[in-house]
Amino acid sequence: MPERATPETAPRGNTTAYRPTARTVPTRARDRAGYDRELVHGILDEAYVCHLGFVHDGAPVVLPTLYGRVDERLYVHGSTGSRPLRMASGTGADHSGTEGTDPGLAVCLTVTHVDGLVLARSAFHHSINYRSVVVHGIARQVTDPEERRSALDAIVDHVVPGRSFDSRPANDRELAATAVLRLDLDEVSAKVRTGGPNDEPEDVLLPHWTGVVPVVHGYGAPVPADDLDPSVALPDYLSVL
Amino acid sequence: MPERATPETAPRGNTTAYRPTARTVPTRARDRAGYDRELVHGILDEAYVCHLGFVHDGAPVVLPTLYGRVDERLYVHGSTGSRPLRMASGTGADHSGTEGTDPGLAVCLTVTHVDGLVLARSAFHHSINYRSVVVHGIARQVTDPEERRSALDAIVDHVVPGRSFDSRPANDRELAATAVLRLDLDEVSAKVRTGGPNDEPEDVLLPHWTGVVPVVHGYGAPVPADDLDPSVALPDYLSVL
Repeated sequence: MPERATPETAPRGNTTAYRPTARTVPTRARDRAGYDRELVHGILDEAYVCHLGFVHDGAPVVLPTLYGRVDERLYVHGSTGSRPLRMASGTGADHSGTEGTDPGLAVCLTVTHVDGLVLARSAFHHSINYRSVVVHGIARQVTDPEERRSALDAIVDHVVPGRSFDSRPANDRELAATAVLRLDLDEVSAKVRTGGPNDEPEDVLLPHWTGVVPVVHGYGAPVPADDLDPSVALPDYLSVL
Repeated sequence: MPERATPETAPRGNTTAYRPTARTVPTRARDRAGYDRELVHGILDEAYVCHLGFVHDGAPVVLPTLYGRVDERLYVHGSTGSRPLRMASGTGADHSGTEGTDPGLAVCLTVTHVDGLVLARSAFHHSINYRSVVVHGIARQVTDPEERRSALDAIVDHVVPGRSFDSRPANDRELAATAVLRLDLDEVSAKVRTGGPNDEPEDVLLPHWTGVVPVVHGYGAPVPADDLDPSVALPDYLSVL
């Protein structure tokens, strides 16, 4: 069971687990759910594309986007003209009556790694080995200039660790065109499936191959841009990818 | 521009492109959007995990799930006890007043492939090469027994082509425990980024490495289950993965 902290004696940030809530306890396969912060951070840090869900005109919208993490905060960014960013800032069509305020935007941010294909003897027990994190919360615009800069660095470094230091930082014009949203890691759960197939005992003698096909992810050889000066060497942080 | 069919003369299913709608035309980077059916089918068929968004108690929820495609229909499945499946069937908490009806469930189903990391000289122009499909619509429970069976086969075969034929089909008890939702491909868009970085002309002489790091996906050697009879050979459909 995840640890439950008593707020008076142990500030939430110091506990080792997120507190389960009604919507972070799954309706099924509860044994696969986890709330450990290290587990969650590990899953979040291994990916860089999340699927961000929000509600627009009463209907769900799910868009892939890059993200970064700084401690217990996630950041996403986008053009100041993009729909979720405008909605969070109160300048979108859904917030025309409250322009200028910052109502935030209710979001669900989900990250998934697929680790293997689980082939059971029965079609029913086919599955996937995966690790996912689901974050619920209110995404809010970041306006503090320092936090905006560190958030943008975190997003770049989340994709390629060390890269933000080896690129030209955003200038004022670029910063003005970029909106940054923050989502605190508070209502969070992980879900993990590992291991082999779970066939029914009566199926064990069926003549079908059964097991797990590992899914692997990697990088190909970096392809320099056409206009790259050939004297610029491949940086170490890329050769170790 | 995508082809726009006149319903009277050309049934939508025969056109080569999906009809853009207000919510499938992006607010930015419109040149990356596409509506061609072959493009969309190709992106959908190369993946097997989607991110399914729906609205629960007014807030967005995004969950990873397997899916299959049969022509212009997508299918997802799950336990009859899982939240989106209960909501679509009208037996979920949000539909307690209309139990027994089939209101359907407004969903957004998104599939994303990451093809490369785009490293520009400026932090601002960093990007990702990707291909994504976003499907909006109403997911409805499938009750016809034949369609349910073919949908479940499609989901298994979407992960490993040919596998449904080489496994025990679901029995009545398993079928009764499984809900299947159908989402028609109607309000659909693809978004694709390819190519190298788009640096500003004044940044070209900066000393930072620039180019694309390809992202590759593949499979490791299949790992047989502990209880697999060693005389069962690895099937051809796995050796070609």
